Amino acid sequence: MIFYAPDCTIEHDTYTLSEVESKHCIKVLRNKTGSNIEMINGHGGQFMCEIIDDHHKRCEVKIINKKQHELHYSETHIAMAIPKSSDRLEWFMEKATEIGINRLSLINCEHSERRSFNQARLIKITISALKQSKRFHLPIIEEAIKFDDFIKKHPKGYIGHCNIDHKIKGKEMEQMRPFLIGPEGDFSNTEIQKAMDSGYISVELSKNRLRTETAALSAVYYLSDILV
Amino acid sequence: MIFYAPDCTIEHDTYTLSEVESKHCIKVLRNKTGSNIEMINGHGGQFMCEIIDDHHKRCEVKIINKKQHELHYSETHIAMAIPKSSDRLEWFMEKATEIGINRLSLINCEHSERRSFNQARLIKITISALKQSKRFHLPIIEEAIKFDDFIKKHPKGYIGHCNIDHKIKGKEMEQMRPFLIGPEGDFSNTEIQKAMDSGYISVELSKNRLRTETAALSAVYYLSDILV
Repeated sequence: MIFYAPDCTIEHDTYTLSEVESKHCIKVLRNKTGSNIEMINGHGGQFMCEIIDDHHKRCEVKIINKKQHELHYSETHIAMAIPKSSDRLEWFMEKATEIGINRLSLINCEHSERRSFNQARLIKITISALKQSKRFHLPIIEEAIKFDDFIKKHPKGYIGHCNIDHKIKGKEMEQMRPFLIGPEGDFSNTEIQKAMDSGYISVELSKNRLRTETAALSAVYYLSDILV
Repeated sequence: MIFYAPDCTIEHDTYTLSEVESKHCIKVLRNKTGSNIEMINGHGGQFMCEIIDDHHKRCEVKIINKKQHELHYSETHIAMAIPKSSDRLEWFMEKATEIGINRLSLINCEHSERRSFNQARLIKITISALKQSKRFHLPIIEEAIKFDDFIKKHPKGYIGHCNIDHKIKGKEMEQMRPFLIGPEGDFSNTEIQKAMDSGYISVELSKNRLRTETAALSAVYYLSDILV
């Protein structure tokens, strides 16, 4: 079992787990003083530890071994409209974290039916998927942003929408660029035009009609170097 | 909105929707005699229809236009251990249907924690994803089968498991062959050996540790010609 220690750095020799992690470690998993556990800090640090105080609210560990992992793939940045159901957003983020997303922006589009999301809850799910998948870098979840403001901030990238003929191959894509995914009702024509004018490239993700979160997950595969 | 008419064939000129579909069409969506609807039969048939009797239990339609779609990609066959939670299996099948799975086998492995699944419910979810994604061929969901029996039936294919170095590229894969995905505890060494002896090729799906259903979805992307 891996524990999350966001403010533990490579300089630390000891560390005290948060109340939530202490409870999970000591009460749920019944670790005792002397047990070995693993911690990650979400920005590349991995720590092998021994419990020196099995307190169920502030479990203290001695760090025996530490390692700083570099990010071994380039940025996978998805900017998607908020799906109607929060379940579908949470499901997406769990899977995208397992596969390799690095950054998620949630954009408000003309046809968006839902404009807000529970950021704290989504981060919690992301941390849990990070531990599960044995990755070391926590993906960043940004605050919701308007479509126009996003385009201004990121003037180049990829945009997935329906009814286009162009099909780009994953390996032809430049990384470090965001992939825009629209709401159930797709982007408006104005939005597509704005993106194209700014320097976005249209991509057809599938011949089938994909739900927002399925399209976004396909974009994670496209941007990651996993399949290409 | 698309309706499912499994026993409607290209020879039909009229058709009566099932009780469930009639209710959805007439009571929920409030279609009336004279309204146009679309139907699919799940084996390539697409039918444009006009309602001639808006009965809420046996809605009758006249078929105005019909088309037989050929399967435009080769077989994408996933054989996976049954995930512990049925939610995760159902989620997988929804997404896999959107992306392009054609056949799902559920295999019972040495380390399987769950050995049965609700086939009827899974088919229902698959039909719903088929309509949503505008595909015309309903993926086949087979009964659960033992690992050994599956290998006998399909002596060649791909097997995804942890701790291997070999990485095959999607485009190097031969289609029409199943992709085996193990349970949370991975395949046993005996199972891996049996598969290799029979003619399976090991594939590392990701550097990260993937859940069963995430690995299976990655395999759908690998086998489909979508990304390669």
